[in-house]
Amino acid sequence: MPSSAPFAKYIEDNQDALIERLAASVAIASVSGDPSYRPEVHRMGKWLQDELVKLGVEVESVPLGPQTLDGQEVQLPPVLLGKYGSDPKKKTILIYGHYDVQPALKSDGWETEPFELKEDKATGRFYGRGSSDDKGPILGWLNVIEAHQKTNTEMPVNLRMCFEGMEESGSNGLEEVVVAEAKKTFKDVDAVCISDNYWLGTTSPCLTYGLRGLAYFSVSISGPGADLHSGVFGGMVHEPMTDLFAIFSKLVTPQGEILVPGIADKVAPLTPEEKKRYEVIDVKVSDFEQAAGAEVTISQDKATVLMARMRYPSLSIHGIEGAFSAAGAKTVIPSSVRGKFSIRLVPDLTPQDVEKLVQTYLHEEFAKLGSKNKFKVEMLSGGMPWVASIDHWNFRAGTKATETVYGKTPDYTREGGSIPITLTFADALGVNVMLLPMGRGDDGAHSINEKLDRSNFVQGSILLGEYLTEVAKLA
Amino acid sequence: MPSSAPFAKYIEDNQDALIERLAASVAIASVSGDPSYRPEVHRMGKWLQDELVKLGVEVESVPLGPQTLDGQEVQLPPVLLGKYGSDPKKKTILIYGHYDVQPALKSDGWETEPFELKEDKATGRFYGRGSSDDKGPILGWLNVIEAHQKTNTEMPVNLRMCFEGMEESGSNGLEEVVVAEAKKTFKDVDAVCISDNYWLGTTSPCLTYGLRGLAYFSVSISGPGADLHSGVFGGMVHEPMTDLFAIFSKLVTPQGEILVPGIADKVAPLTPEEKKRYEVIDVKVSDFEQAAGAEVTISQDKATVLMARMRYPSLSIHGIEGAFSAAGAKTVIPSSVRGKFSIRLVPDLTPQDVEKLVQTYLHEEFAKLGSKNKFKVEMLSGGMPWVASIDHWNFRAGTKATETVYGKTPDYTREGGSIPITLTFADALGVNVMLLPMGRGDDGAHSINEKLDRSNFVQGSILLGEYLTEVAKLA
Repeated sequence: MPSSAPFAKYIEDNQDALIERLAASVAIASVSGDPSYRPEVHRMGKWLQDELVKLGVEVESVPLGPQTLDGQEVQLPPVLLGKYGSDPKKKTILIYGHYDVQPALKSDGWETEPFELKEDKATGRFYGRGSSDDKGPILGWLNVIEAHQKTNTEMPVNLRMCFEGMEESGSNGLEEVVVAEAKKTFKDVDAVCISDNYWLGTTSPCLTYGLRGLAYFSVSISGPGADLHSGVFGGMVHEPMTDLFAIFSKLVTPQGEILVPGIADKVAPLTPEEKKRYEVIDVKVSDFEQAAGAEVTISQDKATVLMARMRYPSLSIHGIEGAFSAAGAKTVIPSSVRGKFSIRLVPDLTPQDVEKLVQTYLHEEFAKLGSKNKFKVEMLSGGMPWVASIDHWNFRAGTKATETVYGKTPDYTREGGSIPITLTFADALGVNVMLLPMGRGDDGAHSINEKLDRSNFVQGSILLGEYLTEVAKLA
Repeated sequence: MPSSAPFAKYIEDNQDALIERLAASVAIASVSGDPSYRPEVHRMGKWLQDELVKLGVEVESVPLGPQTLDGQEVQLPPVLLGKYGSDPKKKTILIYGHYDVQPALKSDGWETEPFELKEDKATGRFYGRGSSDDKGPILGWLNVIEAHQKTNTEMPVNLRMCFEGMEESGSNGLEEVVVAEAKKTFKDVDAVCISDNYWLGTTSPCLTYGLRGLAYFSVSISGPGADLHSGVFGGMVHEPMTDLFAIFSKLVTPQGEILVPGIADKVAPLTPEEKKRYEVIDVKVSDFEQAAGAEVTISQDKATVLMARMRYPSLSIHGIEGAFSAAGAKTVIPSSVRGKFSIRLVPDLTPQDVEKLVQTYLHEEFAKLGSKNKFKVEMLSGGMPWVASIDHWNFRAGTKATETVYGKTPDYTREGGSIPITLTFADALGVNVMLLPMGRGDDGAHSINEKLDRSNFVQGSILLGEYLTEVAKLA
């Protein structure tokens, strides 16, 4: 047995009961994005609060007021603030999770009822919406507390908890709560641990220390006073669509190289040490091909592909608003179109930098076209990238715990997307934040047939406990 | 009075009664595109048949069977075949018109009830759906027949008529009828006259001798197995949208120059004589700016702009199917997109030529991208361009009639769009076809507040009669 701690043995020995608790949580269809499911999100919040209280956690349920969703006014589910232990001699770790889930209907193509946790005995996988994202990890923390109590083991750290019910739908109100609590419930927090992402593949555990930021742009080109018939006006006028294709073809090459001058220069240089981190990550290019559903990776070199996701910016063109988008053959000259693209940001690119570079470049390129159409570039949203130091005791504790539980050094990964709350915790509390995933890369968090492997739930719970133990030793 | 013919005096003197008949036809809401209006289209066909019979026209109503429209099965309105005169010593002219109209609701922004013909006394304009497109012109022909009868003037030609009720909705079934009747009702036809278009501007009458054809293309690019999240996959994979923008940026310049090699070479060369035809057309660039709703013409030279519409091909990009097209900011990498563009064709460009050139060029350009995505080019539809000889007696008759009625030589124009039935008549009957419009360029045929000027109805009816008179003299 990888971990010899009594709490670990308790989790191993009582895994079926702990899985029952996971099944009870999955049975509550806490879909935050659909107003008709909102009562279930509240019920899930109450269920979680009760479970925490049963374990002796001091819980404050922070109401967030109403929101309008699909034209209906509904109450936002509360943020649960938890407090477990206040020993000034111990470190205090803030843990984050979310109790809401993505939508799921059997008719979407699920092989089982999405809100009934169902084991496939042959593979040891538990299918059910929220099993991996993020009810499994939240209950992992509860397993750790229970296991310590039942084995009369002292908790090695003080815990603070922040569990929200709106993560899948924009985390409304959460940032304000975190900022407001920074000097209150969270005031003694020494580090943050978030268990809400996944291993890169299916065999190697990882610690995640970076997330990309985002700068989302809308480019409006308008000319004619109304949509025109291409028979009558084709050839006579400057067409906004022609201009848009000319401009957007200057953004990025088919190999993914961003053509906006100045962006590449601001990317933090790659050190040999960092490069090595990607080279040793236990994943194959074919894993990414499988995930993408086709052999369309930009390279056959693993490290190149990993770095393209994790440490370089990328530019994707998403679509056009105002153009013909239906099936069939309409002969329209759209009079006014808005092209949308976004750039994923990495250190040291800020949204402000990128906005300036994009504005300057696109206006220069548009001027070259000699078009009489009107041109406007807007940044619709911007979010900073985040990178934590893996030399911090928080990551060293995560590393040691992983080595104990899984017998191997974790992959150090960055995610290509954004989890804005990570940056909020880092900024508002001024402490190190680590992402410590429980599930695997093939869990299908936002897809049909979401699952969590039995071993990931059991060993993943033990991993969280070992991490807290290591914090107490290393910090 | 420009025309001294007795029939012309009758039309002048009885214009208010003739306008009453126009009002009666406008009052029937014969909207072909909406199944709930279909009974009115049939009622309009019956009304027109009765009016023709009253004038002694032999009418055959050809049923076209059922169609499914918006999920409902409805009966297609009949094609009315008319026969008036069979004197072997006279020329036989086939006239075409349509008795259906575009949709219209007061709430669309009409200033008057769309299905009540309403005169604005100050301007002498009659507002109402179908006034100009195409009930006014059809009734113009009836005015001519009535005026000849009432003034005991012998009709100078035999008439054949083809009036349909589906022109605004795809002319279902018409081509088959024309082909089938080529050796029957239409067997002695010497030339065709279609009154279903407009002057270029508001002051100069015109004869139209050309229409552009169309080749409509769909370009499919697909890669990933499903839409991907740009955070997770951005930078790692070849994105279909990037490829599509790269490819479509190679189609046409912002100045309207088509970049597909070989297309320009196949366009019939411009002769000095033809060039002159555009230079003398009575229109200003500002008229086109007004029509387009903005100062976006590709040139400030009138002849250049006219030729861009009338005698050169044009390429318009219409939109993308499968990409993000809504408002807002979605961070999707679309997995499979279909870009749509079309090329307007002029002699001597055939759809077959253009398809081959486009296929070759786009596949070459795609190969240069070095993308692993899949690429497919399809021509969804192709229609030939049409140009008639204006040296034919049919056009000489139209010219002479215009000079008599309006005191000026008509503009010789080509339309930028397609009227497929024109080509069907030309091909199936093997005779000269002329478009002889009644209304003005600002009639708003497919817009709100469609109108026909009183003078265009009265002088336009006389023009049709004078044209028939000239046919008898010149043919």
